[in-house]
Amino acid sequence: MQLLQVYDYIAVEMEEVRELFDWELHSDEPMVADLLAHVGKFRGKMLRPMLVLLSSKGCGEVTRKHHVIAAVAEMVHMSTLVHDDVLDEADQRRRGRTINALHGNEAAVILGDLLISHAFHLCSSLDSQQASRLISATTNTVCEGELMQLYYRGYYDLTEDKYLAIVLQKTASLIATCCYLGAQASGAREDTCQALEQYGRNLGIAFQIMDDVTDLTGNEQTAGKTLGSDFLKEKLTLPGIHYLSNCSPAERQQLCEMLSRRSSQDYQEYAHRLHEAGSVQYARQQAASFIDAARHALPATLNKQTYDLLMELASLVVA
Amino acid sequence: MQLLQVYDYIAVEMEEVRELFDWELHSDEPMVADLLAHVGKFRGKMLRPMLVLLSSKGCGEVTRKHHVIAAVAEMVHMSTLVHDDVLDEADQRRRGRTINALHGNEAAVILGDLLISHAFHLCSSLDSQQASRLISATTNTVCEGELMQLYYRGYYDLTEDKYLAIVLQKTASLIATCCYLGAQASGAREDTCQALEQYGRNLGIAFQIMDDVTDLTGNEQTAGKTLGSDFLKEKLTLPGIHYLSNCSPAERQQLCEMLSRRSSQDYQEYAHRLHEAGSVQYARQQAASFIDAARHALPATLNKQTYDLLMELASLVVA
Repeated sequence: MQLLQVYDYIAVEMEEVRELFDWELHSDEPMVADLLAHVGKFRGKMLRPMLVLLSSKGCGEVTRKHHVIAAVAEMVHMSTLVHDDVLDEADQRRRGRTINALHGNEAAVILGDLLISHAFHLCSSLDSQQASRLISATTNTVCEGELMQLYYRGYYDLTEDKYLAIVLQKTASLIATCCYLGAQASGAREDTCQALEQYGRNLGIAFQIMDDVTDLTGNEQTAGKTLGSDFLKEKLTLPGIHYLSNCSPAERQQLCEMLSRRSSQDYQEYAHRLHEAGSVQYARQQAASFIDAARHALPATLNKQTYDLLMELASLVVA
Repeated sequence: MQLLQVYDYIAVEMEEVRELFDWELHSDEPMVADLLAHVGKFRGKMLRPMLVLLSSKGCGEVTRKHHVIAAVAEMVHMSTLVHDDVLDEADQRRRGRTINALHGNEAAVILGDLLISHAFHLCSSLDSQQASRLISATTNTVCEGELMQLYYRGYYDLTEDKYLAIVLQKTASLIATCCYLGAQASGAREDTCQALEQYGRNLGIAFQIMDDVTDLTGNEQTAGKTLGSDFLKEKLTLPGIHYLSNCSPAERQQLCEMLSRRSSQDYQEYAHRLHEAGSVQYARQQAASFIDAARHALPATLNKQTYDLLMELASLVVA
C-alpha cells in the first residue's frame, strides 16, 4: 500500500480542489500573483484535502461543497506554514526557499494573512455558514495552540499531557475538522461524523509527534525543509520531555544547559542523547498508539474501499 | 461639534458592540486571555464600528446584526494594527506598549492571526453569508494593499496615483465596507448603500493621508504612538511624493540619500524640508478635498440627525 493508491482513488476530486485553490488565489496584481504562485509550490501531500474527500467518499457523494472545504482547509494550513516559517526563521520548506527567506518576514506575515483571508472568502461562498463557523472555531483553537507553544518555550518542566494538549490544538484540531466536515457535507449521521473526527484527531496527534521526531532526527535532504528548529527555539517535544522525566539530575542539568545555549553546535549531541536513551523510540511508540486509536475510531459503516484506504493512510503516518 | 456628540448619539449601541467584542475574545487559557486583554487596550476611537452604526441609524434600525458587523470590523482592524506593529517594529500604540515590544514578534504574529480568526468566527454567527463574503473580500483587498505598500518601499518614483490606490486598498476599503454593510443590514436601497460606501471610501483616504502626515510631523505625546516609522522604513507618503516631484534635481538627490540612509537622525530634517516646501500643506489640502467628496457623497435620504453627524464627523478627520 502506497500513498499513490489513495491519490488514485481521489485523483479527479483532487484536481477539482487544486483548480479551485488556484482560482481563489488569483490576483490581478503581478507582484501579488508571483508571491501566491511561489506559495503554491509549498503544497505538499495535501493531507487535509485528502481527508475531506475520503471522509466524504466514505459516506456518500463528493460535491462542490467538499471541494470548497478541502481547498479552504489547505489554505488555512498553508497560512499557518507561512507564519510558522516567520516564527521559526526557517529558510527551507518543501525543497523551496521560504517566503520569509526570499522576501523578508514582513512579506511573509502579510502573505499568511492574505491566505487566511482567501480561505474565509472561499468558505463564505457556500450556501450555509456551518462550515465557516466550524472552520473559524478551529482556527481560533489552532492560534491558541500556537500561543501556548510559544509560551512554553524554554520551560523544561513541560509535561507530556500539556505537550499533547498543545499538539491537539495546533495540529490535530484542523485535521479532525476536515474529517468531520467531509462526512457532514455528505449527509452522514452525526455519530459517523464524530467518529471520523475522532479518527482525524488521533491521526493528527500522531502526525505531529512524528513531525517533531523528524525535526530532531531527520535528514534535511529527505525532509526537504529546515530541521532542528525546535531545539534552536528551546521547544521541548515528546523525546525531550521523555528524556528529562527519566534521566539523572546530572543528565538533566547537562541537557537543560544545552537547550538554553540554543547553539546549533549542540544539536547533534542533543539528538544523539535522546536517541540513545530510547526517548526517540518512546515518541515513535506513542505515535503508533495514537494511530491505533485512529484506526479503532473508524466507523465500520463507511464504504469498504474508503475504510481500507483510511486504515492504511493511518499506518503511513508512522511508517 | 465634537466627537463626543457622535458618541452620545450611539452610546447604547456602542456599549453592545464592546460587550460583544469582549465576549467573542474570551479565552479560558489565562495566558491567552491576558494577551487579548492587553490588545483590548488598543481600542481607540472605534471609527469603524461608529460608521457601521451611523450608517445603520441613518437608514433604519440598529439590530444585533449591526453589533456583530461593527465588532467584526474592529477586530479585523485591530488584527492589521498588531501585524503592522510587527512590520513597523513599533514600540508604542495608543499610549500602550505594543504586543511585539512586550512579547516579541512571534506572539504578535499569532495574536494578529487569532484576532482575524475570531473576526470571521463572530461573522459566521450571522444568518447569511453576505457580510462574511464582503468582509473577507475586503480583507483580501487590505492584504493586497499592504503587500503593494511593502513592494514600493524604497521606490522614490512612486506616483501620487499609485500611493492613493494603495491607500484605497489598505485603509479606505474596510471603512467603505463598514458604511455599506451598516446601511444594507438596515434594509437600505442599493443606491443608498453605495452612496454611503462612497462616503466611507473618501473619508478613509483622507484619514490615511492625515495619519501619514501625523507620522511625519506629529508629536508622539499627542499621537500616543511611535512616529517617524514611514521615514525609517523608506516609505514615501503624500508629502514626500509631492516634494520629490516638485524639487530641483539637487534637492531630490539630497532627499533620496536621506531616505536611503534610514537614520533617525535625518528624520527632523526630512520633515522640516517637506514642511518648508509646502508639501505637508499640499497633503492636508488633498485630504480636505477627499473630505469634501465624502460629504458630497452622503445621501440626502438619511435621517437628518445622522446626516448632520456624518457630515461633521468627516470634518473632524482633517481638523
